Amino acid sequence: MPLPTPLRGVVPPVITPLTPAGEVDTASVRRLTEHLIDAGVHGLFLLGSSGEAAYLTDAQRLTALETAVDTAAGRVPVLAGVIDTTTARVLDRAADAVRAGAQALVATAPFYTRTHPVEIADHFRRVRAAAGLPLFAYDIPAAVHTKLPRAVVLDLAADGTLAGLKDSSGDEGSLRRLLIELRGRAPDFSVLTGSELTVDCALLAGADGVVPGLGNVDAAGYVRLYAAARAGDWAAAKAEQDRLAALFALTEEGDPALMGPSSAALGAFKAAARLLDLIDCAATAAPQVPLDEAAVVRIGDRLAEAGLL
Amino acid sequence: MPLPTPLRGVVPPVITPLTPAGEVDTASVRRLTEHLIDAGVHGLFLLGSSGEAAYLTDAQRLTALETAVDTAAGRVPVLAGVIDTTTARVLDRAADAVRAGAQALVATAPFYTRTHPVEIADHFRRVRAAAGLPLFAYDIPAAVHTKLPRAVVLDLAADGTLAGLKDSSGDEGSLRRLLIELRGRAPDFSVLTGSELTVDCALLAGADGVVPGLGNVDAAGYVRLYAAARAGDWAAAKAEQDRLAALFALTEEGDPALMGPSSAALGAFKAAARLLDLIDCAATAAPQVPLDEAAVVRIGDRLAEAGLL
Amino acid sequence: MPLPTPLRGVVPPVITPLTPAGEVDTASVRRLTEHLIDAGVHGLFLLGSSGEAAYLTDAQRLTALETAVDTAAGRVPVLAGVIDTTTARVLDRAADAVRAGAQALVATAPFYTRTHPVEIADHFRRVRAAAGLPLFAYDIPAAVHTKLPRAVVLDLAADGTLAGLKDSSGDEGSLRRLLIELRGRAPDFSVLTGSELTVDCALLAGADGVVPGLGNVDAAGYVRLYAAARAGDWAAAKAEQDRLAALFALTEEGDPALMGPSSAALGAFKAAARLLDLIDCAATAAPQVPLDEAAVVRIGDRLAEAGLL
Amino acid sequence: MPLPTPLRGVVPPVITPLTPAGEVDTASVRRLTEHLIDAGVHGLFLLGSSGEAAYLTDAQRLTALETAVDTAAGRVPVLAGVIDTTTARVLDRAADAVRAGAQALVATAPFYTRTHPVEIADHFRRVRAAAGLPLFAYDIPAAVHTKLPRAVVLDLAADGTLAGLKDSSGDEGSLRRLLIELRGRAPDFSVLTGSELTVDCALLAGADGVVPGLGNVDAAGYVRLYAAARAGDWAAAKAEQDRLAALFALTEEGDPALMGPSSAALGAFKAAARLLDLIDCAATAAPQVPLDEAAVVRIGDRLAEAGLL
Repeated sequence: MPLPTPLRGVVPPVITPLTPAGEVDTASVRRLTEHLIDAGVHGLFLLGSSGEAAYLTDAQRLTALETAVDTAAGRVPVLAGVIDTTTARVLDRAADAVRAGAQALVATAPFYTRTHPVEIADHFRRVRAAAGLPLFAYDIPAAVHTKLPRAVVLDLAADGTLAGLKDSSGDEGSLRRLLIELRGRAPDFSVLTGSELTVDCALLAGADGVVPGLGNVDAAGYVRLYAAARAGDWAAAKAEQDRLAALFALTEEGDPALMGPSSAALGAFKAAARLLDLIDCAATAAPQVPLDEAAVVRIGDRLAEAGLL
Repeated sequence: MPLPTPLRGVVPPVITPLTPAGEVDTASVRRLTEHLIDAGVHGLFLLGSSGEAAYLTDAQRLTALETAVDTAAGRVPVLAGVIDTTTARVLDRAADAVRAGAQALVATAPFYTRTHPVEIADHFRRVRAAAGLPLFAYDIPAAVHTKLPRAVVLDLAADGTLAGLKDSSGDEGSLRRLLIELRGRAPDFSVLTGSELTVDCALLAGADGVVPGLGNVDAAGYVRLYAAARAGDWAAAKAEQDRLAALFALTEEGDPALMGPSSAALGAFKAAARLLDLIDCAATAAPQVPLDEAAVVRIGDRLAEAGLL
Repeated sequence: MPLPTPLRGVVPPVITPLTPAGEVDTASVRRLTEHLIDAGVHGLFLLGSSGEAAYLTDAQRLTALETAVDTAAGRVPVLAGVIDTTTARVLDRAADAVRAGAQALVATAPFYTRTHPVEIADHFRRVRAAAGLPLFAYDIPAAVHTKLPRAVVLDLAADGTLAGLKDSSGDEGSLRRLLIELRGRAPDFSVLTGSELTVDCALLAGADGVVPGLGNVDAAGYVRLYAAARAGDWAAAKAEQDRLAALFALTEEGDPALMGPSSAALGAFKAAARLLDLIDCAATAAPQVPLDEAAVVRIGDRLAEAGLL
Repeated sequence: MPLPTPLRGVVPPVITPLTPAGEVDTASVRRLTEHLIDAGVHGLFLLGSSGEAAYLTDAQRLTALETAVDTAAGRVPVLAGVIDTTTARVLDRAADAVRAGAQALVATAPFYTRTHPVEIADHFRRVRAAAGLPLFAYDIPAAVHTKLPRAVVLDLAADGTLAGLKDSSGDEGSLRRLLIELRGRAPDFSVLTGSELTVDCALLAGADGVVPGLGNVDAAGYVRLYAAARAGDWAAAKAEQDRLAALFALTEEGDPALMGPSSAALGAFKAAARLLDLIDCAATAAPQVPLDEAAVVRIGDRLAEAGLL
């Protein structure tokens, strides 16, 4: 399946189900993938932050991606995160993604090393030229510790290096200005927000779609939200978003003295998916701290409140 | 004039016009204040970041505030920034604001010193108890270097310490969750966004109003945007916001090698206000670097493009 | 007393004793000042971060400073912090310091507002020109959120704007390079480190002295450390520094869930000074969270271990 | 060769010479390795930040490491960086390092993902248990964006998980307290500073050695500095350090408008090594911006000033 131009709609960053022993649970990958497609999502983003890409070996990444591509079977495009520190390493990840049959790549700016806008632009150009697949830039300063400069994104959109942007920066003001400046310069460029609590706003502002971690838990909700926005029914979109934003509280059930916010959020997505019987086991990859049983009970309560359980 | 409960609408953070010698230009304060009220704003916020509060002596602050209060003459409420490092110093600023006749105070969390959520809550409670005016919390991590914790704001809203929040954090996801959690707990609490590029979004999300620095340049635009949103005409609100977001580019005409983004933005607001003949002199307070003439010409071009000149 | 050129030795950042009601306890200011001079310090720095300058009103600052100047009576120079957001406000503080009889001023870069190296240099030049007293730059990124650029300090040292630097940046590598570059360019420039745990190192590297918060608790220890370093007895200097660094653990007795590190450290200095009978009351200014009794007991234990009690 | 316990002395983080085509230049790896051993270094650290580990593929890393181990031939221990985002990925890198014959591993805390002290401790314990080689913790907040908590390092030193620490945090105060607290609790634990501008200070404070990037350019200088410190000749150690700190200015010859500080520093180390004929080609890995010819000329001048050319 060729990648739609621009890619629009709901593209969840798919969690990677694991067995109790820590291996990729391919049966659960298949079940979850089917569920998401049934819910009406417009694409799948494998091996992003929600997919625990930072915690998976190259072999595990390949297994998860191949399984999702095989399950999707061309019904929706599969985007593959190629998360690694710099160009040469990203290209090794990209070769795996090509081999697995992904339709597009999603790469961040260089990280671990300190970088520079000139280097960031060169990095994306080299990845695009060598990898042979459409390329999305992944702007996630919480992980990468630089913000993609708007001017760099504009240049790379205009010259065709980038097919789109996944914006998880949380900087909605900068995103607004980008959307305005993209008009006319790169009409096929796809802007997807990763800010899952303000999707109605991003769509009102002109974004093409959303990559919501919470979409692993309530994909249908995001599909309804997207449809309402497309129909211009902003009151309905807002109401759906409010419901989803309230549900997002399940990511804060962990004890902050014992675990970080990342473990709490990824653990909650998996615990909820387990409670909804979308996957077999809620384990997260080491060394993340697991949620305790009481937290899982509270997560179940929140699913019930949201009408999901 | 008593403060409306909740305060709603467009409340520009009024710039402080200066003479070429660096003193407060009271005639220009009066002219600008009249202009803003004529444009339909719903309140005035004096002595905020856009008002160069950090650069003005206590005497200058008092002069600017007294002049604005006198000019407003009860037609719209005047909120006074009481920007200082911690409680006792803020209370000295608050005494001046009471003397000048302000209708409400706007205070940040402690800054310069490192602080803690328990201290932040205690700080606002002490200021509210001692100052005798409604109190807004000013969440501006770019200046204060802490983000107001959502739980602290909720507690202070519920117990009546705070009359409202001016949110310049740029964290729209956290704001969304706050708006949801405030419902029912504090119906009279006013949430004003300081994120002037995404006001349509904030209003869609349920915010009560906006404190736009750019409102010094195009107050009527923000008033139209607010009216469209209140009428549920989100397409019109978006179009107005897009026009204003494009206009915001005037804040980036300074040379980043020679001046910081703050000088460039405050200088641009003043240069634009001068070109629009709202004030007599575009000088900013020392040690801010002034914009060069070429930048001012480009700012004029942008005003013309936006239909303002 | 004229300021020595360069200023060298131990210059404690004097805490500001308060009464239980929160007013400046002038009797304790006098007792503590006498104690420090008796211990052999080479100067006093009033109204710095350890002096809770951020928490004191202008009137309280003036009272504390006047009392210390009067008590010192020319035996050692008194440096006065003039901590405020930008130039005009700092100059108001400087006028008070001149009135109180201070021998030198200590000012930070602009804070609260975002700034730029050109503005920082202009700020110090304006303060020096208008205030009429020798000026030290206070590099404290933890409070000010910018690091003083080495090139700016070098320029301001070479042209005589600055008499010295109080370096609380913790960036010992940059300090080393500054010390090397200052040689020959500004031989009378005084470099004082505020990093109280590595004073032996700073003196070995060529610093002129130290401004240790812990010097409120063990001034004699820092005087011995300084003397050993001046004598070239680095083993003795290291041993003394190790003892003081171990003692510094008293700053961490507060419960991090209930109070911030700043409250814990300032509270500890005051609790220790009270236990040593240098001041009458250990209260810190609002809204700082006070240490609980158990923490004060542990602080007493640490003083005993260090041979001070 | 077994790893000395504790490891002490000069352990340069060896740069990875590349061919003009970007492949590992094994002949230059051998020549540089011989040169460093001839200069008297006490160990070699391959695949650290100076080694451009973030830019090399797994295959390139393995080639560089195998070549260095083979060349060292047991004369000095070889430590191998196993830089990757989290536990499972680090273990894949560790398997390569074991295969290549390294004597010890050097791992950071998890990065890209947000982490927590409990996870950091678990991460190091899992790596140590599974990898089968002595393990050093690499504290480099500039890359990893967390600082290793002192309490975590102490626990992992005391229970034998860690053989040592490479501290590139620049937080000399925290290092001092760690050194004091390690005494008696973990006498064989090795503390190596990565702060190459203050090595005399770190050794005075009790550190065991240094991992200086600049040691690729002047290994003999660091060996002399270390020897002087061990002999208690602190004046000589300081003089040598001052000379090396002045030489370090070669890392700042790049144009900051065109390249970042990391490219400038790594490029300078390689340009200097090329000028000293230690390697054949000064190329750095993509997408780093190369130094221009004028910068390389200035680097040559600095080598001449330092008596190296």
